[in-house]
Amino acid sequence: MAERAGRRVALGPGAEFDLIRRALAGAPPLLPEVLVGPGDDAALFEGGWAVTTDMSVEDVHFRRAWLAPREIGYRAGAAALSDLAAVAARPVALLLSLAAPAGEASTLEEVHAGLREAAERAGACVAGGDVSGSPGPLVIDVVALGRASRPLLRDGARPGDEVWVTGRLGGAAGAVHAWEEGREPPAALRRAFARPDPRIEEALHFAGNAGVHALIDLSDGLAGDAGHLAAASGAKIVLEEARVPLDEGAVAAHGPARALELALHGGEDYELLVACVPGAVLPGTFAGVGGPPLTRVGRVEAGEGVWLERADGTLTRLARGGFDHFSSAR
Amino acid sequence: MAERAGRRVALGPGAEFDLIRRALAGAPPLLPEVLVGPGDDAALFEGGWAVTTDMSVEDVHFRRAWLAPREIGYRAGAAALSDLAAVAARPVALLLSLAAPAGEASTLEEVHAGLREAAERAGACVAGGDVSGSPGPLVIDVVALGRASRPLLRDGARPGDEVWVTGRLGGAAGAVHAWEEGREPPAALRRAFARPDPRIEEALHFAGNAGVHALIDLSDGLAGDAGHLAAASGAKIVLEEARVPLDEGAVAAHGPARALELALHGGEDYELLVACVPGAVLPGTFAGVGGPPLTRVGRVEAGEGVWLERADGTLTRLARGGFDHFSSAR
Repeated sequence: MAERAGRRVALGPGAEFDLIRRALAGAPPLLPEVLVGPGDDAALFEGGWAVTTDMSVEDVHFRRAWLAPREIGYRAGAAALSDLAAVAARPVALLLSLAAPAGEASTLEEVHAGLREAAERAGACVAGGDVSGSPGPLVIDVVALGRASRPLLRDGARPGDEVWVTGRLGGAAGAVHAWEEGREPPAALRRAFARPDPRIEEALHFAGNAGVHALIDLSDGLAGDAGHLAAASGAKIVLEEARVPLDEGAVAAHGPARALELALHGGEDYELLVACVPGAVLPGTFAGVGGPPLTRVGRVEAGEGVWLERADGTLTRLARGGFDHFSSAR
Repeated sequence: MAERAGRRVALGPGAEFDLIRRALAGAPPLLPEVLVGPGDDAALFEGGWAVTTDMSVEDVHFRRAWLAPREIGYRAGAAALSDLAAVAARPVALLLSLAAPAGEASTLEEVHAGLREAAERAGACVAGGDVSGSPGPLVIDVVALGRASRPLLRDGARPGDEVWVTGRLGGAAGAVHAWEEGREPPAALRRAFARPDPRIEEALHFAGNAGVHALIDLSDGLAGDAGHLAAASGAKIVLEEARVPLDEGAVAAHGPARALELALHGGEDYELLVACVPGAVLPGTFAGVGGPPLTRVGRVEAGEGVWLERADGTLTRLARGGFDHFSSAR
């Protein structure tokens, strides 16, 4: 791991990342105990520790009209755990900071119960945290700590690699889209938003596969996260439109064209995207244990950016955040 | 450290802690990699890693009318670093989650600059984080990671120990009290609130002193934090009124009786309190290097709770949070 000491991973495009780039300009070198600093889904520390922090703010990341407090907590926990999966770390513990207006102790207890459920399903425990007041929104910050014996970062993709994703995409954004149109999403779509399943076992499987070069989780949409991986790896990713595995509920509720937009730009699927040598990953890898499908969605080439290849062979460069989604405030 | 595996530290009194106690009821055992879980200032993990998370919410922990954005960031960083000092850990890195309303990018950059200043003064770096939107308040969550070769916890105080504090108390609360009375605090009082100095070197010194049994930082006021230490140690702490080292600016601005109240119940001094065998700590320990004074403020006895011994020898049991302070919402 010596070659990793103090590594910063190149950030992808976007205003959020411009701000972070400016804020980190001129920062002193990372200490040798910090193996990977800003730019990946989690920071990595001596001893194989992976640590990530993830804030959820009411009316930015969730609405109380959409989810019960326990679901809000579960989802916040799953999102943070997905950041551990994104570097192939096994979850160990969560630390929680919760803020709510006075008189909301029972809300906080429900949120905490959902967080504990997410932690315990992933084999982790709640190891601390604090509770404070808020002048308005419910705020949840989840710190997730895990151990990675072979961390997989964003920056390992190489021209010639295949690009694969777990699961089906666009379901969570499909639920948000239904709510924003003023209707309740069908149960399966709602579940995709409320009960994401962080792909921890799958990530640990990838860590054991020497042909897998790079890993990221899908929190910003397939286009956005492929863009992070492309930027960090200094390469170009071509996504093949016909191969993107669309969530069936999103297709049924919104039609295939909108479902593709939701998969590309909607976000919060918490599936995984990997880059690997051809043949290293097979579609049915997780099917035997009730796991998600695995789909080859594209390839890595020399160049930069994320491109969508249509059925007729035309290529369009995808901008990050091209779809105006509630959660794009992230 | 084997005897520490999976240790939970008993929580002190207070509604916040009642909520945490209920939320953690029935939790499964901590994993063996978690050396110390909920109840102390930081959780401790295999390899000597100490991790703490600390949320600051606008109009609960600070007001923009009182502090510039850079000061808000510095103070949030110092508060989190003080939690590392409280377990005698050397700071390594901060992870930051920041939320602000749309259009506040320059505010966030200033907050970030203050956080970076606090980190770099403490020898740590910023190793990651994220930025998101907020429907109203500025929200800052700081995760601080450090290494502790001999962690000092809250639960080591023994009857017969002396109780000492670093620095002078009540300054930060004295500034808040002035603002709440509608006047600008004198510069020295304002500085006590805006520029706390986490006692990291002092904490590492205590870790090297075998006579020091227990350590905590003063974030909830001397009475509150002595109460946490007493509860965790299963002992009684007697504070000697005449010995409490009052901030001179607080005495000048508010008089000695109110200054004592502020020291006992105001909070956010970010000084350290230790329990040690008699003679293990000397008043001038840090004076030669420009450090804070050290003052013996009381003693540990068999029993429970925190008691104030007046000059006439009478004893009064102190309740936590008896002074109605802005920051008691923490």
